[in-house]
Amino acid sequence: MTRLTLAIDVMGGDFGPCVTVPAAMQALASDSQLYLLLVGDPDAISTSLTTADSALTARLQIIPAESVIASDARPSQAIRQSKGSSMRVALELVKAGRADACISAGNTGALMGLAKLLLKPLDGIERPALMTVLPNQQQGKTVLLDLGANVVSDSAMLVQFAVMGTVVAEEILAIMTPRVALLNIGEEESKGLDSIREAAAVLRNLPDVNYIGYLEGNDLLTGKTDVLVCDGFIGNVTLKTMEGVVRMFLSLFKSQPEGTKRRWWLTLAGRLLKKRLAKRFGHLNPDQYNGACLLGLRGTVIKSHGGASQAAFTAAIKQAEQAVRRQVPWRIATRLQAVLPKSD
Amino acid sequence: MTRLTLAIDVMGGDFGPCVTVPAAMQALASDSQLYLLLVGDPDAISTSLTTADSALTARLQIIPAESVIASDARPSQAIRQSKGSSMRVALELVKAGRADACISAGNTGALMGLAKLLLKPLDGIERPALMTVLPNQQQGKTVLLDLGANVVSDSAMLVQFAVMGTVVAEEILAIMTPRVALLNIGEEESKGLDSIREAAAVLRNLPDVNYIGYLEGNDLLTGKTDVLVCDGFIGNVTLKTMEGVVRMFLSLFKSQPEGTKRRWWLTLAGRLLKKRLAKRFGHLNPDQYNGACLLGLRGTVIKSHGGASQAAFTAAIKQAEQAVRRQVPWRIATRLQAVLPKSD
Repeated sequence: MTRLTLAIDVMGGDFGPCVTVPAAMQALASDSQLYLLLVGDPDAISTSLTTADSALTARLQIIPAESVIASDARPSQAIRQSKGSSMRVALELVKAGRADACISAGNTGALMGLAKLLLKPLDGIERPALMTVLPNQQQGKTVLLDLGANVVSDSAMLVQFAVMGTVVAEEILAIMTPRVALLNIGEEESKGLDSIREAAAVLRNLPDVNYIGYLEGNDLLTGKTDVLVCDGFIGNVTLKTMEGVVRMFLSLFKSQPEGTKRRWWLTLAGRLLKKRLAKRFGHLNPDQYNGACLLGLRGTVIKSHGGASQAAFTAAIKQAEQAVRRQVPWRIATRLQAVLPKSD
Repeated sequence: MTRLTLAIDVMGGDFGPCVTVPAAMQALASDSQLYLLLVGDPDAISTSLTTADSALTARLQIIPAESVIASDARPSQAIRQSKGSSMRVALELVKAGRADACISAGNTGALMGLAKLLLKPLDGIERPALMTVLPNQQQGKTVLLDLGANVVSDSAMLVQFAVMGTVVAEEILAIMTPRVALLNIGEEESKGLDSIREAAAVLRNLPDVNYIGYLEGNDLLTGKTDVLVCDGFIGNVTLKTMEGVVRMFLSLFKSQPEGTKRRWWLTLAGRLLKKRLAKRFGHLNPDQYNGACLLGLRGTVIKSHGGASQAAFTAAIKQAEQAVRRQVPWRIATRLQAVLPKSD
């Protein structure tokens, strides 16, 4: 594997350096070709590094940043006042070619806006989209986008999302001619919003996309499609709904069973069974696939959950590594040139 | 309890009389004050009744209908050609005062359109909404609307949904000053669609609604609110997503564990534990709460899942009984007169 440098906005997210720095060390330990630029308050970063292995810290560099964009700030205002913030500095490192990608758990709207401003969209892309790869019941994976980069999407944007999702499914998941579906409230052609029906009409005639029709919310995890496309509002609500229900069930596997004293063999069997359940459904745990990729830019940007744990933030760093190594932005650009009209 | 008569569109849904007629018998058996009008093909109904208990059949009457509205028909076209269909005849029985409510598992759009045409919306209601009562993790219940009666909803409609949801939570769930939230992609005021932000501004100043702010998809089952309001597209996708994930987990409790020969005590313990899990989460099973109520009309109409099982369709009939006995339409009308500007 080739050497790779990632910039991390260590100040973003609900927990900041307490979570992001240990996650960075974990990522460095698992990939000897990885180099990290930790962007943020040098004192806070140093404190989190006191017990770190010096063999690993040799592959990281602290890049000072004066401020942090608040997670509840209005994106437009945050962007205007972003100079010197950890998020912006991390993105500027990508722009300057010093980092191959950037990861942040900070304000989604600000990250999206700043990334678009600094890294620029690819030719043919009106607006980037947030994409994640979900595990499904068939032990396969499903590409889901947009997850909230855009609150409203017209049909042209949905078509662009379908093309970008296809490239990700082919290049990252190695699926040949991936199936693409639009998320809707029914499978009949006449159903849903105008934007969805218009996008369907275009996708049916686009030779480079293997469009299979509409799917409904209950098919999110069934693996009936490889790429599921929707606008950002729907995608965000759907993903969070799914995560909420999955977390509720997984919490059961962790908790002690109710009731008082039980026979030893029942307790033992209970533990074994829970372990088995956790194994069977653990891959659906949101912590395992944290990290949404901002697609459609001339660079790689990964958005982590704000509330990500160390394991979850490490997963986001790994996703950045994978996107860079598979040259996702370049491959999307190439495909777009072939199938979409240019915007410039 | 007082005597109650319900009209059932027995031909609607994926399975027609094979499911709806046995469900009707089950409902009759559990409520001695219930009388049913079974609307549809008399031959098909009679066939499904051959083994029925005559003590129960004394409380039902077959109402012939010539045709059935196809579940995949375009609503506008289906409504134009609806004369003599089982769905329309069932609604006409409500309009004529022969039935107190109607239940159908047929075409949602057609049911919504026909119900509005025949039963008329209440004063102050632009468009009826589909509502369901979901179980939540706090062992309480959450009223969710709209579930797809309207593909797009403006802020005025969202406010009306909030008022109707409040009445349902008070009258059916007996919750004092129920909490009302809008489903959104973030909890900050600036988040989401214009319609949602405008509805929030109105709800904050509406004394009769206990508005608590935005909630996200992951809070669908947490019980943080008593009423959750969204437009029909979002509601439909969210509910189906939740149901898909719940069904996936519940299917596990039914299936045999993997692996070959196991120790007898492990098998036994496994069974016991699964039973316990099923008991703990069984109330989240979509079959237990099937039946969405079309709110905002001068009458009670219940929409069942098209693919409802016998148990699920029985649950829908029970929901109709409850809505009629609690006089939901009348109570909504009264509340609307107090808080909303009249539309006439």
